[in-house]
Amino acid sequence: MAELTGKSSIGFQSSTQSESTIFGVNPATGEKLQPGYAAVTETELNRAVELAEEAFEVFGKSSGVERAALLRKIADNIELISDELAALAPQETGLPEPRIKMETGRTCAQLRLFASVAEEGSWVGARIDHADQDRAPIPKPDTRSMKRPLGPVAVFCASNFPLAFSVAGGDTASALAAGCPVIVKAHQSHPGTAELVGQAVTSAVKDSGLPEGIFSLLYGPGRETGQSLVRHPKIKAAGFTGSRAGGQSLMKIASDRPEPIPFYAEMSSINPVFILSGAMTERAEDLATGLHGSMTLGVGQFCTNPGLAIVDDNSNLEPFISKITELVAASPSATMLNSGIGSAYDSGSKLFDGNDAVETLARGEAGEGQCQASAALFQATSDAFLNEDSLGAELFGPSTLIVKCDSGDKMLALARSLEGQLTATVHGTDADLEANSELLEILESKAGRVLINGFPTGVEVCHSMVHGGPFPATSDGRSTSVGTNAIHRFARDVCYQSFPDSLLPRELQEDNPLGIRRMVDGVTT
Amino acid sequence: MAELTGKSSIGFQSSTQSESTIFGVNPATGEKLQPGYAAVTETELNRAVELAEEAFEVFGKSSGVERAALLRKIADNIELISDELAALAPQETGLPEPRIKMETGRTCAQLRLFASVAEEGSWVGARIDHADQDRAPIPKPDTRSMKRPLGPVAVFCASNFPLAFSVAGGDTASALAAGCPVIVKAHQSHPGTAELVGQAVTSAVKDSGLPEGIFSLLYGPGRETGQSLVRHPKIKAAGFTGSRAGGQSLMKIASDRPEPIPFYAEMSSINPVFILSGAMTERAEDLATGLHGSMTLGVGQFCTNPGLAIVDDNSNLEPFISKITELVAASPSATMLNSGIGSAYDSGSKLFDGNDAVETLARGEAGEGQCQASAALFQATSDAFLNEDSLGAELFGPSTLIVKCDSGDKMLALARSLEGQLTATVHGTDADLEANSELLEILESKAGRVLINGFPTGVEVCHSMVHGGPFPATSDGRSTSVGTNAIHRFARDVCYQSFPDSLLPRELQEDNPLGIRRMVDGVTT
Repeated sequence: MAELTGKSSIGFQSSTQSESTIFGVNPATGEKLQPGYAAVTETELNRAVELAEEAFEVFGKSSGVERAALLRKIADNIELISDELAALAPQETGLPEPRIKMETGRTCAQLRLFASVAEEGSWVGARIDHADQDRAPIPKPDTRSMKRPLGPVAVFCASNFPLAFSVAGGDTASALAAGCPVIVKAHQSHPGTAELVGQAVTSAVKDSGLPEGIFSLLYGPGRETGQSLVRHPKIKAAGFTGSRAGGQSLMKIASDRPEPIPFYAEMSSINPVFILSGAMTERAEDLATGLHGSMTLGVGQFCTNPGLAIVDDNSNLEPFISKITELVAASPSATMLNSGIGSAYDSGSKLFDGNDAVETLARGEAGEGQCQASAALFQATSDAFLNEDSLGAELFGPSTLIVKCDSGDKMLALARSLEGQLTATVHGTDADLEANSELLEILESKAGRVLINGFPTGVEVCHSMVHGGPFPATSDGRSTSVGTNAIHRFARDVCYQSFPDSLLPRELQEDNPLGIRRMVDGVTT
Repeated sequence: MAELTGKSSIGFQSSTQSESTIFGVNPATGEKLQPGYAAVTETELNRAVELAEEAFEVFGKSSGVERAALLRKIADNIELISDELAALAPQETGLPEPRIKMETGRTCAQLRLFASVAEEGSWVGARIDHADQDRAPIPKPDTRSMKRPLGPVAVFCASNFPLAFSVAGGDTASALAAGCPVIVKAHQSHPGTAELVGQAVTSAVKDSGLPEGIFSLLYGPGRETGQSLVRHPKIKAAGFTGSRAGGQSLMKIASDRPEPIPFYAEMSSINPVFILSGAMTERAEDLATGLHGSMTLGVGQFCTNPGLAIVDDNSNLEPFISKITELVAASPSATMLNSGIGSAYDSGSKLFDGNDAVETLARGEAGEGQCQASAALFQATSDAFLNEDSLGAELFGPSTLIVKCDSGDKMLALARSLEGQLTATVHGTDADLEANSELLEILESKAGRVLINGFPTGVEVCHSMVHGGPFPATSDGRSTSVGTNAIHRFARDVCYQSFPDSLLPRELQEDNPLGIRRMVDGVTT
């Protein structure tokens, strides 16, 4: 059993602070968990960034094969402690053990997927345009370009994914795969889980003979440590998953720096689900069951939780409404991640309850204690939704607002009124879909992922995934935080003009020693 | 001969304003040129954006073949007026006719290059991951992703490239190729040239049977019109080439909007040229001639103008210094683009002249009048350069500061002290380069393009070009404004989950009807 120390790790060193100020809390019991964690000092934070900058000089030039070995070693080390994670993380997060086991598996799979991308090597998008000495009026020089890593990256752990979007989660995996050292800011909601995974990463860095600055894990209360990281002149990019308020405040810091940096925040999304009339007629009960499963999965604490269902009031809605009302009413209460999230859900759902434009169709079983969430089903008209911005705000937790539209035009108007989303879903028969192509086009312009006849929770980790979307779903709709395209977050193209072959990165050398896919004089081979 | 109207074009309509407030001025004579141009009203600007949004619904779905035809038609139309451009643009810009002809050719070549990229179609990065119904614990859905255009784009004309970075320049070509309507803000320094090119574009849009909102050309004095454009909620991205102050003020508007948008500004770069001792010994005179040619090309009014040359004080510098001093002293005065740029160069070079840490080695011939620039060669020590930030600021015009380093460490320290650059150049023998790998690594982290034994002016329009670089060279170092990768500025990935084949974009349909390169289940074919 690995021992928890309550310390930040600055490269291979533990922080020397001893005053514990950050404690995990079991949300189900309110029990304060040991050990407490000491906040990192400014000096230690600076040291972590200095080490990362030094490490970048080596790691930024490492080969894809070396990075792949590191990523696989991290995955192996995490698997070795999967039982400890499955024991500890549920205490810190209220998430059940099977979920933690699944998330651990996904985290290791992500690391190995990025290992394969780094190892294969073609992700750098190598391009070669040969010289032409005979070109008139002036000779054409030899130019070659490829993606190079940006430098030290700050990664913020997410409360709702203590593994897959935390210490060795997606951003860390893609940054390391690209060749960027990573400094992780732990989430105070699961400090022990973070430390266990941090130990697994540090040990992999050590065993790989790589410089210590490739990885640091910092603890700090509130937002100060994270803000200092994003503000640090030697940090060259950052990845964040969390609230809209937290993300926007960090976005502002990133863009107001003397040298602005890329800042990838995944923030807020209500993931609208449109149910067209043919589908409603054909499979009302299945839709109710599917939507209920998606909205309550993980106590509704997914970025892709369907917070909004839009239905056609000209269909017979009764079977759907009565089924989902019954399912929500019968939903057991469940433990949310922490008291902050629990009380935000509580007060947010009370606002809906108390809103005259909103009808509460069902509440799930009420639990005991601050972190117990009862599922909630609300209903409003499209006119109310269009008139009141607050109905379109994210309510993080197991709730869905059903909006009834009495015409196709209202449905289109509602779609047009939406902010940027991670996902948008349409349920329809072939005839529905054919008749609603305009709706699909609007949704494509609003979301990173559009689904037909599915539910938005469950994000595949694969090459074609886009877990992103226009603001405010994310800070930068050109990017994804899940799937192999995420490696491009932490790299930029550099062009090498008239370089001797031996001084070029191997990816660009004439005889293609790495055997990667390249575009040579306009032809991809 | 096309007739100049002095009007903005809002889609296919001319603006109705009649009070002319914007006049081109011949910088060589001070003559006010006719016609004057009326500033666009707020209503007209809003109308242009509304039309662009409407047009996007059609143009965003157009095929690469259709976009290619439009781009080629624009190029054809510009070629038809190349004589008129060669007659008018020199009057407005002071640039000589052969330069205008060459730039016209480059502009048309750029348009045709982007046409070929759009037509070939693989730029969208299509990825397909097939469903797997048998996967445990839950089936894997079918997911497919590709790049889709962002929406209406604002493009700012640059003063120093009245064609290649203006109305139908790089940003317009790449935005149209991606499927984005374009609203161009004309530069008041060459309003007639802008109108001629604008007519060529509008006529191509008309002949292609495409919606008028695909292209508008707006005139406005000062910065107000441009700021309103970037602030407009329906503008989804913008491209700018100009001053650091102008670029940063627009960056702030773009990031402070309720919905922040991608903003690509190319702003400021001093393009350091490092001359190592072996090269200095072997070819001092050639280096002097080459550097002089690069620094005075186009009256030094290139973003890639070498404003800084770093030399090793332990080499014999005399032949180099005396040759370049002689060449600069003999340089004829030349007309700058406009009085603003002329006086900024004047006052900037006077600051160098009056700085005790700087020695003025040579001034070229002095011309008559406000827009005449005389070339300037300055010299300082690396200590002075490292102590005084102002020596590293861009002085836009035909001047270079030579900085002498008395040790290799000083040269590295100087390299490390540099801000982000468009280019960085090293001249060296094979032995020099081998001994200075650290210098090359530092420069790679500072610049978008690194050159060996060349000069930075002259940016190839090709697949591997990177005309970008870390801030403040550009606002977004992940992007390029020249070369075919520029098409990615104006697009984002969208994922389609479980779509029926017939509803997918053709790029993602199962039988690959467009025959483009795609990644299918992880394998690129």
